[in-house]
Amino acid sequence: MSNQPIGIFDSGIGGLTVATQVRKYCPGEEIIYFGDTARVPYGTKSARIVCQFSYQNTRFLLQFRPKLVVIACHTASCLATDYLKQEFPSLVLVDVLKPSVEKALNHTRSGRIGVIGTTATINSKRYQMSLESANNSIRVYATACPLFVPLVEEGWIDNQVSREIASIYLRPLKQKKVDTVILACTHYPLLRKVIAGVLGDGVRLIDPSEEVAAQVAAHLRRGAANRSSVGRGRLRLYFSDCSPRLKKVVRLFLGQTKVTIKELKPDFLPEVFNV
Amino acid sequence: MSNQPIGIFDSGIGGLTVATQVRKYCPGEEIIYFGDTARVPYGTKSARIVCQFSYQNTRFLLQFRPKLVVIACHTASCLATDYLKQEFPSLVLVDVLKPSVEKALNHTRSGRIGVIGTTATINSKRYQMSLESANNSIRVYATACPLFVPLVEEGWIDNQVSREIASIYLRPLKQKKVDTVILACTHYPLLRKVIAGVLGDGVRLIDPSEEVAAQVAAHLRRGAANRSSVGRGRLRLYFSDCSPRLKKVVRLFLGQTKVTIKELKPDFLPEVFNV
Repeated sequence: MSNQPIGIFDSGIGGLTVATQVRKYCPGEEIIYFGDTARVPYGTKSARIVCQFSYQNTRFLLQFRPKLVVIACHTASCLATDYLKQEFPSLVLVDVLKPSVEKALNHTRSGRIGVIGTTATINSKRYQMSLESANNSIRVYATACPLFVPLVEEGWIDNQVSREIASIYLRPLKQKKVDTVILACTHYPLLRKVIAGVLGDGVRLIDPSEEVAAQVAAHLRRGAANRSSVGRGRLRLYFSDCSPRLKKVVRLFLGQTKVTIKELKPDFLPEVFNV
Repeated sequence: MSNQPIGIFDSGIGGLTVATQVRKYCPGEEIIYFGDTARVPYGTKSARIVCQFSYQNTRFLLQFRPKLVVIACHTASCLATDYLKQEFPSLVLVDVLKPSVEKALNHTRSGRIGVIGTTATINSKRYQMSLESANNSIRVYATACPLFVPLVEEGWIDNQVSREIASIYLRPLKQKKVDTVILACTHYPLLRKVIAGVLGDGVRLIDPSEEVAAQVAAHLRRGAANRSSVGRGRLRLYFSDCSPRLKKVVRLFLGQTKVTIKELKPDFLPEVFNV
């Protein structure tokens, strides 16, 4: 078991922030990353389709016989974790919801917590319910920020437009005087400067990728499942679609100048729809 | 043949602007509309995946035995029309590229034409090549506007943010003093007011949906393929995903208060990826 890789899937490239932290916490581990760039984004879609895509992504990773699978995407974590647990009962699944909630609860002083994410994440109410059920004196204010992902993918992470959009989306959280805000989407940490600029210095921004990695490391330690080989493990990237811009955006996330990407060759043309 | 429906596919809901015009030009015809909302958008993805999705969408429509299929999506029209013609040689395909180009050539006085569309549409250079090969004295200036689609889907079609984004994207076209701009994406007509505000009254905006409908009507007349039944034909809508917001956005496009949508029940979980 110990020499098997860690699988990570995401709706696209945002989950690379999680992959980077997992590499830092578990440098000896082999990592297989799968980004569903052919069908990205998930955050505007229904729970049913997010479950279906997440199932397929997990099946893709299972061919590498991973010792655990990380659901790096907040939308999939909120909408599909229960479904995946039911479909793959013997698979160890780590999602990003629990570490985000724990970190936010540890940090808040006022008990007023904001959550920002995709429309599907916010509408699922999973963050809201998890925070409130952990501590019923907590007040949660949740806001969807649908333009944040396209802003990051356009590379407009700190200009006049991104500041204006952030100030519109974040106004309700500012009015509610939250002291902690969960960045419940893997793209949002790239807008950290703009978000912090709107919310002010007194508000703590929670990016759970580090805690997710810490949880993965703890799980491996508990199960004595660390890879035995010496040296740094590989990070292998797979994407369901490789657009001309993919490498550029992957570099933005990994901060590396040289990136090698495996392009999948789908040899199938399935009947996807039936009436 | 004459009583068979007209098929229309699009990456999502934008193609409903085309469907509306086809209904106006051919009121007696039955129309089957398929929007690939599960995998939308196409405009940020590769030619290979857009061809594959377009193939599947066409296969979906073929079960209704359509007398012709309209490719309402500009990205699919630019990237996948040749591929679809090769895969379905006996199928009549109408794309949105040719009518857009003809209309722009008819309207320009200065010979300086702008094209705005998704990243994939602009990178394909299909519009640029079609305009220039029709008349080599034409100068074409093409710009991708990746944030326009998410702006429309967010419903921000006329606010300070949309005006600012439009002014950034359209600055190069303004500087080049184009007199005609092709709106080469089905979402962009909804931003017409903002786009016109930036470019000024002297610039003609080309939305080809009416010309596409006219071309469909002409094709049916030529082949004496009009539906013989009396009365208004139905418009049936199919979507690969029905998010909670879908009805709202469909209404925005169709301008109808009551909309009935068929949700597809996919009973499949294909193996989408292999290494």
